[in-house]
Amino acid sequence: MLLAMDAGGTSTRAVTVDESGQAFGYGRASSGNPTAVGISSAVAALVRAAEQALPDGGASPGAALAVIAMAGQQTGPFVDQVSLRLAELGVSRVLLQPDLLGIFHSGTSERDGYALISGTGSVAARITDGRLDQVVGGRGWLLGDTGSGFWLGHQIARAVVSALDGEGPATALTQLVLDALGVEADLGAPEGRVHAVRQLVSVVYAQPPVGLAQLAPLAFVAHEDRVARRLLIAASAALADLLAVVRVPTLSGPLIGGGSVLVHGLLAAPDDLRRELVLPAGELEVLPVPDGVVGATVLGLRSEGVDVDANFFRALSTNVARVAQT
Amino acid sequence: MLLAMDAGGTSTRAVTVDESGQAFGYGRASSGNPTAVGISSAVAALVRAAEQALPDGGASPGAALAVIAMAGQQTGPFVDQVSLRLAELGVSRVLLQPDLLGIFHSGTSERDGYALISGTGSVAARITDGRLDQVVGGRGWLLGDTGSGFWLGHQIARAVVSALDGEGPATALTQLVLDALGVEADLGAPEGRVHAVRQLVSVVYAQPPVGLAQLAPLAFVAHEDRVARRLLIAASAALADLLAVVRVPTLSGPLIGGGSVLVHGLLAAPDDLRRELVLPAGELEVLPVPDGVVGATVLGLRSEGVDVDANFFRALSTNVARVAQT
Repeated sequence: MLLAMDAGGTSTRAVTVDESGQAFGYGRASSGNPTAVGISSAVAALVRAAEQALPDGGASPGAALAVIAMAGQQTGPFVDQVSLRLAELGVSRVLLQPDLLGIFHSGTSERDGYALISGTGSVAARITDGRLDQVVGGRGWLLGDTGSGFWLGHQIARAVVSALDGEGPATALTQLVLDALGVEADLGAPEGRVHAVRQLVSVVYAQPPVGLAQLAPLAFVAHEDRVARRLLIAASAALADLLAVVRVPTLSGPLIGGGSVLVHGLLAAPDDLRRELVLPAGELEVLPVPDGVVGATVLGLRSEGVDVDANFFRALSTNVARVAQT
Repeated sequence: MLLAMDAGGTSTRAVTVDESGQAFGYGRASSGNPTAVGISSAVAALVRAAEQALPDGGASPGAALAVIAMAGQQTGPFVDQVSLRLAELGVSRVLLQPDLLGIFHSGTSERDGYALISGTGSVAARITDGRLDQVVGGRGWLLGDTGSGFWLGHQIARAVVSALDGEGPATALTQLVLDALGVEADLGAPEGRVHAVRQLVSVVYAQPPVGLAQLAPLAFVAHEDRVARRLLIAASAALADLLAVVRVPTLSGPLIGGGSVLVHGLLAAPDDLRRELVLPAGELEVLPVPDGVVGATVLGLRSEGVDVDANFFRALSTNVARVAQT
């Protein structure tokens, strides 16, 4: 039996499958990514998700191999701790894989194609023979991640400060952001606006910058607002640019999409917004997947010599979806 | 006698003057702004600069009043500490004033006009009757400061990462940034570029984000490069937008400019670049000043009832410049 996990920046998912593609248990926990929440929280989340997915909560011998799909380069201490804790659940080998491969293999049984993620960060890759051939983006909130949740949240916060200061245009985002951050103010009066911007500045600087990613969904809520819509169009264009870097004429797809901004935001946009977004279409349409946990099972099964063809993949995806719902 | 100080984000200047506008001593030290370097470093720098400017290093009774022009809202602990330490030098009263007023009154004896600063941050104000009437900008690196040194440095770093990743256009900024950050790499080879971007990312995330402001001068060094020039034009346009917010038709100037990006960068640009920048001109031309120390003397003298008219101001400026050079 194989334990497959997807350790995202906001949540972790785990599933157990066997060599025939049957799925047995499923688990969910908070973020299992040490870059996002620190090593000890990440390891604890991975263990919680694994215990739910393993038979008897890991008490009886279950999976010998665990595959974890996750973003970023992992440090020795994290790998040591997670191996140690999963060993207590009967796991003798831990295989770490890039989140891009988890997402890609959650959408297709093909070994060549593209993956595009826009969650907290943004990244794109060309995949050849099941491996990352070229990756672009993923340089974090300060140096990259254009079109990501952080980028959107950051632009939203700046636009609201600018609007309150009378520097930029008024926007429906203002009230949404103040509500989301718990700032109460009477925007009708000049003193109310001064109070609002002071509170807003103080709340934002008190949290880690990457926390601004939490504001990203507000752009979709306010998508009829001119300022919000311009940001959404810019985000979609930045993701299209990212994809263009890894695209080669000899490979036409498939293109698998992941991350909440892309999957639940841009690709789920109402028609009037969608028409203005720069989304891959036609030959290179994005196939969205909710997370990378199916891909982690594919990577694990293939590493054990299982032939995951299109039929096997279809059955496997259905089986994982079934245990995820229970 | 009056002790006047300008506590900037990178350096502190102090001067002693008397009621007739004579200048006696001058001092320089590192940043005296607690937001930039913390309370204890800031207080130490202010004391060092004051000791140089005061007669006998503050040993004999010198100035009773100290005026300190500086950015940001100051906390009680900082004000207490600086008052305590300056009291040891004979100063019985400390008056804090906004950096915008220090800059404005360093350029003119008028009581109405505009000030525009682009240093590490960016801010603009309309001054009426010697007081800040409307201020815009100054919201810090995460929420504002478009067109500032941080903004330029941030955009430069992102452009270089993007160029190294093959996402954005190649730029002369790349080698300059790698040199400035001590990253050695052979950019001719693909592995060299991968190595360079990894090192660059690691160096940048290891320092406080605001440290990126140190890269701003590189845009001026590389001003013939297309990417650098686009950033400089965007910075100048952002500052023009900031100024437009506080401008009213009934007040035509003067406009006093401060901060190294504005004074030593944009306003000192070679002709071919200057023609493309969006700089206030004509009726509202920027009069640059090197710092706010003359303005701090004006604020102090006026608070003591001295009539600082155009002639007095001219003599005072000359006197301060003379002691600054010795």
